Amino acid sequence: MDDNKNFEEKISLITRNLQEVLGEDKLCSILEERDLRVYWGTATTGKPHVAYFVPMSKIADFLKAGCEVTVLFADLHAYLDNMKAPWELLELRTQYYEHVIKAMLESIGVPIEKLRFVRGTDYQLSREYSLDVYKLSSVVTQHDAKKAGAEVVKQVDHPLLSGLLYPGLQALDEEYLKVDAQFGGVDQRKIFTFAEKYLPALGYAKRVHLMNPMVPGLTGGKMSSSEEESKIDLLDKKEDVKKKLKRAFCEPGNVENNGVLSFVKHVLFPLHGEFVILRDEKWGGCKTYIEYDELEKDFTDQSVHPGDLKNSVEIALNKLLDPIRKKFQMPEMQKLTRAAYPPPTKQQKAVSKGPAAENDVIVPSRLDIRVGRIISVERHPDADSLYVEKVDVGEAQPRTVVSGEGEKRKVEPLNPPEGSTPGERVFVVGFENGTADDELKPKKKVFEKLQVDFKISDDCTAQWQQKNFMTKLGVITCKSLKGGTIS
Amino acid sequence: MDDNKNFEEKISLITRNLQEVLGEDKLCSILEERDLRVYWGTATTGKPHVAYFVPMSKIADFLKAGCEVTVLFADLHAYLDNMKAPWELLELRTQYYEHVIKAMLESIGVPIEKLRFVRGTDYQLSREYSLDVYKLSSVVTQHDAKKAGAEVVKQVDHPLLSGLLYPGLQALDEEYLKVDAQFGGVDQRKIFTFAEKYLPALGYAKRVHLMNPMVPGLTGGKMSSSEEESKIDLLDKKEDVKKKLKRAFCEPGNVENNGVLSFVKHVLFPLHGEFVILRDEKWGGCKTYIEYDELEKDFTDQSVHPGDLKNSVEIALNKLLDPIRKKFQMPEMQKLTRAAYPPPTKQQKAVSKGPAAENDVIVPSRLDIRVGRIISVERHPDADSLYVEKVDVGEAQPRTVVSGEGEKRKVEPLNPPEGSTPGERVFVVGFENGTADDELKPKKKVFEKLQVDFKISDDCTAQWQQKNFMTKLGVITCKSLKGGTIS
Repeated sequence: MDDNKNFEEKISLITRNLQEVLGEDKLCSILEERDLRVYWGTATTGKPHVAYFVPMSKIADFLKAGCEVTVLFADLHAYLDNMKAPWELLELRTQYYEHVIKAMLESIGVPIEKLRFVRGTDYQLSREYSLDVYKLSSVVTQHDAKKAGAEVVKQVDHPLLSGLLYPGLQALDEEYLKVDAQFGGVDQRKIFTFAEKYLPALGYAKRVHLMNPMVPGLTGGKMSSSEEESKIDLLDKKEDVKKKLKRAFCEPGNVENNGVLSFVKHVLFPLHGEFVILRDEKWGGCKTYIEYDELEKDFTDQSVHPGDLKNSVEIALNKLLDPIRKKFQMPEMQKLTRAAYPPPTKQQKAVSKGPAAENDVIVPSRLDIRVGRIISVERHPDADSLYVEKVDVGEAQPRTVVSGEGEKRKVEPLNPPEGSTPGERVFVVGFENGTADDELKPKKKVFEKLQVDFKISDDCTAQWQQKNFMTKLGVITCKSLKGGTIS
Repeated sequence: MDDNKNFEEKISLITRNLQEVLGEDKLCSILEERDLRVYWGTATTGKPHVAYFVPMSKIADFLKAGCEVTVLFADLHAYLDNMKAPWELLELRTQYYEHVIKAMLESIGVPIEKLRFVRGTDYQLSREYSLDVYKLSSVVTQHDAKKAGAEVVKQVDHPLLSGLLYPGLQALDEEYLKVDAQFGGVDQRKIFTFAEKYLPALGYAKRVHLMNPMVPGLTGGKMSSSEEESKIDLLDKKEDVKKKLKRAFCEPGNVENNGVLSFVKHVLFPLHGEFVILRDEKWGGCKTYIEYDELEKDFTDQSVHPGDLKNSVEIALNKLLDPIRKKFQMPEMQKLTRAAYPPPTKQQKAVSKGPAAENDVIVPSRLDIRVGRIISVERHPDADSLYVEKVDVGEAQPRTVVSGEGEKRKVEPLNPPEGSTPGERVFVVGFENGTADDELKPKKKVFEKLQVDFKISDDCTAQWQQKNFMTKLGVITCKSLKGGTIS
């Protein structure tokens, strides 16, 4: 990589393959004086897969053009997006993101000295930032905040207040990260124009905005990190890559929504400056393209066949993935991956049979909660403040439970739905299918950790994290203790 | 004050004259064990006047009942409400509020050992609080946030985002101030029920809510601290109190919206346990009431006349105000009052002629900005990087202005509206009527302080703090330098 690129080379690298640039004048005037500072943000919610090579290729362009690149891990957003995931898990995911992004850029072969990683929580909860969030909220109309998030925030019937805050945070990030420009998909356009409108209202400079087109996923569909089978994971084995690519949408002659072609255009061409279609002699032999448009033309003419395209991409992709796979074979990387993305509950049970296996995701399905009928309550023979209850939970013999009076708080039993019978399983909505632990190990404090979030709602329904406790017949309620705890 | 009041006496003191109590069960169960912790919040925007005796009388009740009372000065809200007012001024106002509230309670004769004052900025910008604001925003719907503020937040065509945040902040304040209950006017009801609904969603306890009725102002109108002539200031002289009370709405026999009767009910009765109508012998002589209802009945029957009621209130009110007036005669209190509430600009000019007068409010009307026509521009004879311009500003002779090239930034002249003539006054919207300083004292940096907030808007209009620069013919614009500064 040559650091002495001239102005035109830098501009060209920074803007190539972008769909739109807002503030090109400013971009030019900065580059006339010094290197650009640009940031790209990603929420650390899912797991990066091959689609991340698309923004990474642009980030590689920025680095090649001498830019200082900041990758913002929006861990605060990730936390708020899913308050079920504890901070510890999010921290592990952020570490995973950092390692995997470094591995991708190293695999692309770009120097990363001018790349830095920042966590949202490094500054988004500071006094200064918080005051700026309030100041911004005092000049931004509800209408503009809503409009800004329209394409990025999930549109639902009862939208949450947080959705109106995010555009402002993303605008302030530009100031707090001390960058000249923000890079993102063109789906961010309304947030970017919102930032351009409102940052100056706080006395901050309007930033440049660099927008990638929306690129279809390599194996079809929009780029997203949702856990679908079709996505190619960065650590997938070669045979899985082959299998998934085989299923990818890639019609002969059709370049629309063609993720395979898009991957060539946005990842492989920028990387190598050329692309080779590997092909049997009898179909015309190999052909090297130095312009993407030539390849697209040949594909449209059907002189390049989907099968050959996929084979050629598969080989190029595996070359990109090999160094990443290798890095993640190291024991500490394997450990990090397992910890950051523990297998879902169903499989966990099987895993937990292994001697050193971890079983750390605290979900309510790990508790075996049953409907019980109180048969008798008596004072404890040896302690006046204790009661001994016999409870039928659908087993051969009733269980004996000892309970205290607590601190003279009001206590009420929870009521299962009408017609319930002892022994019926009680579950939390959304966690119907998990298997309960065979035994609650006292050290693991699974019950204790879950119990923190047990609450009686304002309409007297028993809940864990605002999700109802139910049996197959309906919700569990209590008579009057709104806001009460459950033990 | 007797600290050994029994349970019934405490309950009665705490709840008397309230319109509504939410969570009375909880109130009782706390009082069975210990004294109540209650908070009342007020934004330090205006200037407390006699209407503040209404909440102060309830706060006196709380203190008499042994409660720990926290007064929250919502300085962050005050700042956001009017970002023109600098923090230094707000801090002075907060100090004024604290002194005046103490003086009012001392005048009422209640012990204030269990009274504490907290500023919003003491904790509302902390990491924990900020995270909780975001967490709350992630469970609160936009709809609920809007509904909660409906009665308290100004309803305008283009509502600001901040209006949706305030109910959540007020809910969190209950947790962060570690109180059992919040006291406020019944206009806060929707915010209170919002707090009851959402605090438990964050794992915090639902609080008790104590609501005063909306009491008409002593001299008519709703309680508010807007700077109207009719309001009786806590430092008004006796003759002003008489004059203002004379004008107060108080129809014979009509108890509706009767601020004078309300003042007797909510301030004077709770204070003395009785009220004496002072009256000439020929109209029946003085009469002592020990029940407010008796007085109201006599007023309805017109056996108590508005004139006698007003006279009696005037004497009782002056007794309340005397100790406050006395305290604020101390030089440091006088200084604080002047600094916290500097006289408005128009009067300032006259004031500034005095030798030691202060003239500290930085408003754009202090600048004498005029439309000018550039007659000629020439290189400075002695400095290549300077220009000498002759500018016609409507005076007998053009003025000579020397300007530099700056740091090679783009520079454009500001354009007055079409048809403007040199010398026309340029003003900022909202500051049309102020009188400009005769002379800008360099030390005071009036221009410099104002210039910080000069900006070219996104539609190329010249602005100070987002308010347009105008002449009588229309706005001042520039050709293209959106976001640019003005010098």
